[in-house]
Amino acid sequence: MKAARDRGLITILDAKRGDIGVTAEHYAAAVFDGESGADAVTLNGYLGPDTILPFLRPGRGVYVLVRTSNPGSDSIQNAALAAGGTVATLIADMVANLGKSRMGGRGLSDVGAVVGATKSAEGAALRARMPDQVFLVPGYGVQGGGLGDIKPLVRARGAGSASAGALGVLVTASRSVIYAFEGKAGGWQGHIADAARVMRDELAALVG
Amino acid sequence: MKAARDRGLITILDAKRGDIGVTAEHYAAAVFDGESGADAVTLNGYLGPDTILPFLRPGRGVYVLVRTSNPGSDSIQNAALAAGGTVATLIADMVANLGKSRMGGRGLSDVGAVVGATKSAEGAALRARMPDQVFLVPGYGVQGGGLGDIKPLVRARGAGSASAGALGVLVTASRSVIYAFEGKAGGWQGHIADAARVMRDELAALVG
Repeated sequence: MKAARDRGLITILDAKRGDIGVTAEHYAAAVFDGESGADAVTLNGYLGPDTILPFLRPGRGVYVLVRTSNPGSDSIQNAALAAGGTVATLIADMVANLGKSRMGGRGLSDVGAVVGATKSAEGAALRARMPDQVFLVPGYGVQGGGLGDIKPLVRARGAGSASAGALGVLVTASRSVIYAFEGKAGGWQGHIADAARVMRDELAALVG
Repeated sequence: MKAARDRGLITILDAKRGDIGVTAEHYAAAVFDGESGADAVTLNGYLGPDTILPFLRPGRGVYVLVRTSNPGSDSIQNAALAAGGTVATLIADMVANLGKSRMGGRGLSDVGAVVGATKSAEGAALRARMPDQVFLVPGYGVQGGGLGDIKPLVRARGAGSASAGALGVLVTASRSVIYAFEGKAGGWQGHIADAARVMRDELAALVG
């Protein structure tokens, strides 16, 4: 973590924490404090907004799990609510509400959302509910998500506004990049670099 | 953890884990394997049943967060579903379903549920949906739960059945016991022992 920070990289700890009161405060300290502290952390919001608050700090970010890309997530996150929407949109509204007073640069909030790349059918609806959130989008590559799944998640950009250039998506790939050398001849560094460049070039199509 | 096991105590790691696929498998190994491995772990089920499965092992237990005792939990867990019930009962049904094939001794499943002591109004409904689950009940003492909040969570016991004696509740207190010495004269050991005995005697009233 320190080596990444020394190189000017942003670090996100994908710890999916979610706990109450004093425990959440201790988790926040463990995540953010010290020279191995992260810039942001992923959180599970099932326990409610008071379990998110201890992680909100100036200059740090959180990404709350809204819609995940694993097959079993549908049975919980996609359940319909009596008041309309789904369990996922209930969490999305909580995130948008918590994030309103936590606006960072370029019109983006420092309270973000995890929205899997393989759930693009719901992506546009989630973006409409969370216009100012950065979406952390796992699932690109190995988990099955592609460019067409990410486009609905991109933020609408008002011409001339402070946020004109902000796509609002942070697309991640893990295994498809870090294990790109497997079964291939030659040094691992080149294969990983190639995989990262391919992903960068593919995602460049989002900037239109 | 090893010291507790050497004394014949059961250990439950309140780690509230919840992650997908290969990550869940690694978390399960970290929780259960080695000489510091726990007997059971608490889990967050928001990501769905496939994120619980990697933690199911013979001789080990899980407790899935169903209804927590913090004030902010209502806004998520108590939201009404279009199909009836709440988000909490949706998780409860998932727990009961996962636990059907995981029956341990005395007619109890090794897939349990976390149900806070301060939500007794819903306790009876949750017990009806999860008849064979052990309920891990935090919130006794400092967090405000009392004996009247726990009674609705106790399992109905069929006379003469293998599970006739199983209450199905595991009531925990943390701060009210381990900090019982604060502001009092004399050795801390005595105050902690006294607080534990008071709790034991209060809970004995559940066995009728």
